[in-house]
Amino acid sequence: MAKKYNVAVVGATGMVGQKMIDILLERKFPFVKLKLLASARSAEMKIKAGGFVHTVEELTVQSFDGIDFAFFSAGEMVSQEFGLEAVKRGAIVIDNSNAFRMADHVPLVVPEVNPDAVYSHKGIIANPNCSTIQMVVVLQALQKAADIKRVVAATYQAVSGAGREAVEELKDQCRAYLDGEPILAERTPYKGALRNYQIAFNLVPQIDLFVEDGYCNEEIKMIRETRKIMSLPGLPITTTTVRVPVMIGHSIALNVELNNPLTAAETRELLKKTPGVIVVDDPRQLEYPTPLDAEGNDAVYVGRIRPDHSVRNGLNLWVVSDNIRKGAATNSIQIAELLLSR
Amino acid sequence: MAKKYNVAVVGATGMVGQKMIDILLERKFPFVKLKLLASARSAEMKIKAGGFVHTVEELTVQSFDGIDFAFFSAGEMVSQEFGLEAVKRGAIVIDNSNAFRMADHVPLVVPEVNPDAVYSHKGIIANPNCSTIQMVVVLQALQKAADIKRVVAATYQAVSGAGREAVEELKDQCRAYLDGEPILAERTPYKGALRNYQIAFNLVPQIDLFVEDGYCNEEIKMIRETRKIMSLPGLPITTTTVRVPVMIGHSIALNVELNNPLTAAETRELLKKTPGVIVVDDPRQLEYPTPLDAEGNDAVYVGRIRPDHSVRNGLNLWVVSDNIRKGAATNSIQIAELLLSR
Repeated sequence: MAKKYNVAVVGATGMVGQKMIDILLERKFPFVKLKLLASARSAEMKIKAGGFVHTVEELTVQSFDGIDFAFFSAGEMVSQEFGLEAVKRGAIVIDNSNAFRMADHVPLVVPEVNPDAVYSHKGIIANPNCSTIQMVVVLQALQKAADIKRVVAATYQAVSGAGREAVEELKDQCRAYLDGEPILAERTPYKGALRNYQIAFNLVPQIDLFVEDGYCNEEIKMIRETRKIMSLPGLPITTTTVRVPVMIGHSIALNVELNNPLTAAETRELLKKTPGVIVVDDPRQLEYPTPLDAEGNDAVYVGRIRPDHSVRNGLNLWVVSDNIRKGAATNSIQIAELLLSR
Repeated sequence: MAKKYNVAVVGATGMVGQKMIDILLERKFPFVKLKLLASARSAEMKIKAGGFVHTVEELTVQSFDGIDFAFFSAGEMVSQEFGLEAVKRGAIVIDNSNAFRMADHVPLVVPEVNPDAVYSHKGIIANPNCSTIQMVVVLQALQKAADIKRVVAATYQAVSGAGREAVEELKDQCRAYLDGEPILAERTPYKGALRNYQIAFNLVPQIDLFVEDGYCNEEIKMIRETRKIMSLPGLPITTTTVRVPVMIGHSIALNVELNNPLTAAETRELLKKTPGVIVVDDPRQLEYPTPLDAEGNDAVYVGRIRPDHSVRNGLNLWVVSDNIRKGAATNSIQIAELLLSR
């Protein structure tokens, strides 16, 4: 009989945590025990999953005793406080926060892109940022086929990337707008910000804190994580990240300059054969991916594939994926599956 | 006493037409008579403006007898049918449609960018596409200062660009979504399309028809019009145009590669001095332009100005403007003012 594992989900009441539970069940991850962990505030909450009612337990260091796989998605501070403790107690930590992604000895893994990196782990494996994941799945295919010279990415990111309360605020703002009521804004760019912006019927060109050189952290993450995952430390890449009033599904207008020629038709064929990618690209039928179409699915959808005539070997692509699934929960569980496959 | 003019607004009941009336009054355009024209369907409609009630008249070729300036914003077909007739009858036509923009002897004018072009007109002057206008105001300043090598633009365009019914549909879709009712989609990418997409809480990476090489017409317009306005027929530029669930205000993630160095600080100073531009760019205060902030104003707002380290002399900028005002109505009236100024 195949081995079964004790699994913990840290941040089980969050959007990503809840989706992790769904996906563990959907993909029949071989667990014998599923421990749902969250802060004291959420302890004793009941969560229905797989025909059972699970009770959320308060996260403590003891929570990890006997756990084989701990999926963390409760923010950077929780990962920093409990991640290494979980490893000490024998768990393999798959962390969806920014806490360890750029740490030297922590593999940062997208299973379709750099599966081999996972095996060098020392207890913690980092799940990349949501926008990074969907972008590198496409970039890696282009890199192998035609060697990337430069990348310019502009994102259109859903509010679910900022958590459930941001989604509720978008709905509340829409309702208030339609009813002619005052609009409250407390979640975009982030809770407790010096200044908050309405996101309903608006755009906010900032995701995460501003860090350096006029860049916000989401932009820096996309640049650095892409280089690490693709093992291309000098990859020329620039990004602009923008929050849009979409619930679920991040999109990227991706401009790529290649060292070798690759036509739009060849790119389409290449991406059709790329694991994890679905090409939706038929201008005659007005077919291209949208966030609503991507929602609830695990693939990275690519359309609007066309030559960029402004540069030698230029390409434009439109890349869409469910940020809660492939951008977070699904990728985390795929990392664990990868470990089990060997 | 300064001369006063007879002015006609063609498409007076549309979003842009209505805004033209407001702006003619706001800017005290020297008109003695204001004739509001629309299709038979809208004739006899009453429009309040400037303390008077105007009655909309049915558009016929005779409508232009005695008219000095005719502002057209009723779509390409109306401009094609009536534009030259209006000129024959002595009017100067300022056309906001795509009908004549790329015609050889028709100036395509953004007053801050190529004012001198206006004087070569043969009766018709074209107003550029909304996204083009806000982009070229910024590009022209960069071109003069540091010589542009290449441009990569990704747009985030408001539904008002597709007209009043598209705005109403966005509201209806939001309401239906919040109430759990079925969502009707008939306006995006355009009315009567082979396939329509929900735009509420979604993105649609197509604006106007697909024309060639996988590009939609909005993308082609931005490329060709920019080259014509800036008199740079070979300017390397590529675009991706996306409809977003915003009511008013187009945004552009603009990536520019220059031939000569220009720092972010220098760019900020340059743009602060550029007519028609307002710089809103202070990451420490979380300040940058958003479509909601631009709504109702005539400026082109620029923020998120920062170096692009992926290339020599690279810059990223975020450019926002009210697509109904500077992108359409205001620019058209500025063109007429330019003619009067000489």
